[in-house]
Amino acid sequence: MIDFRPVFFTIGILLTTLALGMCIPAIVDLIAGHSDWKVFASAAGLNAFIGVAMLLTMRTGETKMTTRHAFLLTTLSWTVIAVFGALPFAFADLNLSFTDAVFESMSGITTTGATVLTDLDRAAPGILLWRSLLQWFGGIGIIVMAVAILPQLSVGGMQLFRMESLDPSEKALPRIAQVAAAIGLLYIALTAICAALYWVAGMSGFEAITHAMTTIATGGFSTRDGSLGAFNSAAIDWVAVAFMILGSLPFVLYLQAVRGNLMPLIRDSQVRWFLIIAATAVTLMIVWQTLINGVRFGEAVRFVTFNGVSIMTGTGYSSTDFGLWGAFPVATFFFLMFVGGCAGSTTCGLKVFRLQVLYANTVSQISKLIQPHGVFIPHFNRRPIPAEASESVLSFFFVYIMAFGALAMGLGWMGLDFITAVSGAASAIANVGPGLGPVIGPSGTYASLPDAAKWLLSFGMLLGRLELFTVLVLFTPAFWRN
Amino acid sequence: MIDFRPVFFTIGILLTTLALGMCIPAIVDLIAGHSDWKVFASAAGLNAFIGVAMLLTMRTGETKMTTRHAFLLTTLSWTVIAVFGALPFAFADLNLSFTDAVFESMSGITTTGATVLTDLDRAAPGILLWRSLLQWFGGIGIIVMAVAILPQLSVGGMQLFRMESLDPSEKALPRIAQVAAAIGLLYIALTAICAALYWVAGMSGFEAITHAMTTIATGGFSTRDGSLGAFNSAAIDWVAVAFMILGSLPFVLYLQAVRGNLMPLIRDSQVRWFLIIAATAVTLMIVWQTLINGVRFGEAVRFVTFNGVSIMTGTGYSSTDFGLWGAFPVATFFFLMFVGGCAGSTTCGLKVFRLQVLYANTVSQISKLIQPHGVFIPHFNRRPIPAEASESVLSFFFVYIMAFGALAMGLGWMGLDFITAVSGAASAIANVGPGLGPVIGPSGTYASLPDAAKWLLSFGMLLGRLELFTVLVLFTPAFWRN
Repeated sequence: MIDFRPVFFTIGILLTTLALGMCIPAIVDLIAGHSDWKVFASAAGLNAFIGVAMLLTMRTGETKMTTRHAFLLTTLSWTVIAVFGALPFAFADLNLSFTDAVFESMSGITTTGATVLTDLDRAAPGILLWRSLLQWFGGIGIIVMAVAILPQLSVGGMQLFRMESLDPSEKALPRIAQVAAAIGLLYIALTAICAALYWVAGMSGFEAITHAMTTIATGGFSTRDGSLGAFNSAAIDWVAVAFMILGSLPFVLYLQAVRGNLMPLIRDSQVRWFLIIAATAVTLMIVWQTLINGVRFGEAVRFVTFNGVSIMTGTGYSSTDFGLWGAFPVATFFFLMFVGGCAGSTTCGLKVFRLQVLYANTVSQISKLIQPHGVFIPHFNRRPIPAEASESVLSFFFVYIMAFGALAMGLGWMGLDFITAVSGAASAIANVGPGLGPVIGPSGTYASLPDAAKWLLSFGMLLGRLELFTVLVLFTPAFWRN
Repeated sequence: MIDFRPVFFTIGILLTTLALGMCIPAIVDLIAGHSDWKVFASAAGLNAFIGVAMLLTMRTGETKMTTRHAFLLTTLSWTVIAVFGALPFAFADLNLSFTDAVFESMSGITTTGATVLTDLDRAAPGILLWRSLLQWFGGIGIIVMAVAILPQLSVGGMQLFRMESLDPSEKALPRIAQVAAAIGLLYIALTAICAALYWVAGMSGFEAITHAMTTIATGGFSTRDGSLGAFNSAAIDWVAVAFMILGSLPFVLYLQAVRGNLMPLIRDSQVRWFLIIAATAVTLMIVWQTLINGVRFGEAVRFVTFNGVSIMTGTGYSSTDFGLWGAFPVATFFFLMFVGGCAGSTTCGLKVFRLQVLYANTVSQISKLIQPHGVFIPHFNRRPIPAEASESVLSFFFVYIMAFGALAMGLGWMGLDFITAVSGAASAIANVGPGLGPVIGPSGTYASLPDAAKWLLSFGMLLGRLELFTVLVLFTPAFWRN
């Protein structure tokens, strides 16, 4: 039997931290005079109790963290936070079932943004803040994971982003801890700047802070039923666009940019591809909106850019029901969902670097067809891609599509119509938020779905957020063998 | 400049053969006393003239067939036959536009089965026979291509099926010609048996022959507006199921079976996977139909098996509007479209062996995650898969999904609604025939689509039929460079 105590010890730390996090909405509700403060306080107490109990019982000086520990820890921490983070939703006066509470919490911590809540406009500030906090924690959590853990685990081609390969002169581990801390500070700074700009653009202080947290995390929870569209402000829309994009680029590059070295950010091919894909999709939809739907150019630019960037980055805000724009935009939104942003950002989806690796491999395949004896090595960011990383990405793509298909068929089995099943599956696995169609589209919510569908979607969000393989290895017998 | 004369010489042979083929419906119409015989006779004359002219002018004793010649020849022959095979549709009294005629012809030669024709029940026998003949030619054409050409070109992992690798003691080329001829005979024999069984089951002689040709070719053109459902005969449905499956298995294995060696057919893992996938999908849909829709068990078995096998194998017959069965079956039909049958059969789609290679690679990826220093070699049919073949299949999958997405978005741009665009794209690239939804679903036709959409779908059929890369290489500058 493998000694998994170090894993549970770390989970203990996380639960204790989660308890501390719950104190924030407790204080806010207490100040606002809302009785929900008791819910947060008791949930915090419960979490702290379990967390500290784990810290005390699972302590071990000897066992070292292995690859298996890392896999189990990653999946378990997201699951545990989703379940324990759901306590406030379950016990607050929202009348949520346990299923709904976990769905909302999982949607938060995975920065998806799908919601079962309506009447947000009249919800208590504590609950609204808790939703934003979950996404904010989820956002920084995934960046740190993408920098510190996934490259070491070689999940889905993430080995391309190993720190050692960037600078072999320094020792890996202390450097990674340093980088993670610096990224954390930067994350806080970006959130603060975003909140300030939202506030200048007309939001209240509370709204500015909660939306800043869900923007930089490309999460998409809003404090309004009408999402960001409820503010009906071009300034707010453009602030959101800017920070959704900032949340979608590799955060390590910002560190170098802050030190005055802008070149890595400017020369990074992943950043360029991301911007080119977004610009192409947005431009085509602007042409469609002006030509086919006769929308004024300025308005088309604003609404297409906002909703296009929101869906591609998996944020999931909406400022209008883009499901009504017609055939081409709906198809485009569907495929944009899968794209996502860059590795090492808060976004989910396939991620741009994988599309680059896939494209580079395809180009060398085609070259090889024409010159069977030629040698064509695919490149990423001006470096040759190791064959092992290519295979990893190619398999990832296959598993991604299979998982999407299985989710969609599962949702169909639960009675969801074709567009709801297919777009819901895509939206969950790519951590987007809204789907397409009248039920779960930008104007709908997930509230009316059957419980089984909510559990399946929650699992899909976890799967997508943790890059599939991190979760799937746990289902193989080999993982548990000694 | 590369000397492409051998390519055009071969196209000349094909056109002359096509002219001979057109004589058959000409004779049938003449006997039936229908004036369309003149259309076929003059189209045959035109084809023969151009064909013989090419034979005379493009003759060259020196230039040998190279890889590039093979690529150009493959794409060009399918395109040329689609265009010249469209002449009877354009000139007969069907009132078809040139676009519609080429669409119908391309749908025929690629064994897709999508149609723009209505009122088939009252159409002249010559036209009905010509549609069946096109699919029948297309079916044997693709088997021969899959045996003789694609493995040499290493397209999409087809190098796994190189003859030399099966039996290195024999010389490749004469052996391939022998095999192709034997498969041709077998194809004719299977068609004859299928026709006889259809006739015994109650079809007229003409219907039995035309349907036998489109069944074994997994094409799906019918002589009735209601497709095979118009016959409303369980016996006919089961004959169709049997021969659609026979058309979906690797024909080379039949050769060995005919010689008394059944083991290769029984032990072939691709055959097993194909049957398991089909059986799983059909079983689940039977459960759905009996439990959710309250269909009688016997009826559910018959209709689900028939329509499920028809869509998975890309035949495209329908015996009822399965689009009305509800959420799960519709989602299942959508994903089944992509599967297709085995390599070396008349089916299109991703093909089962690719799913096996993708699965095997994924399993070894996951094993590698758990034991980073282990060596895990994926296997196909009890042999290790060369890394080059794996990469080829993995890239194929990516390009397949991208091509599907591009087609769907293009169809959206042309104004098709989401389900029509998405299922139409899938149906075209996988050479299925019907799509989903009210427009192009099993009860509809492609007649009402805009011309641009028909051209795009025709291109999609060609792309899917020729395994994508065969067509795509022609669009690279490197192909045309010396």
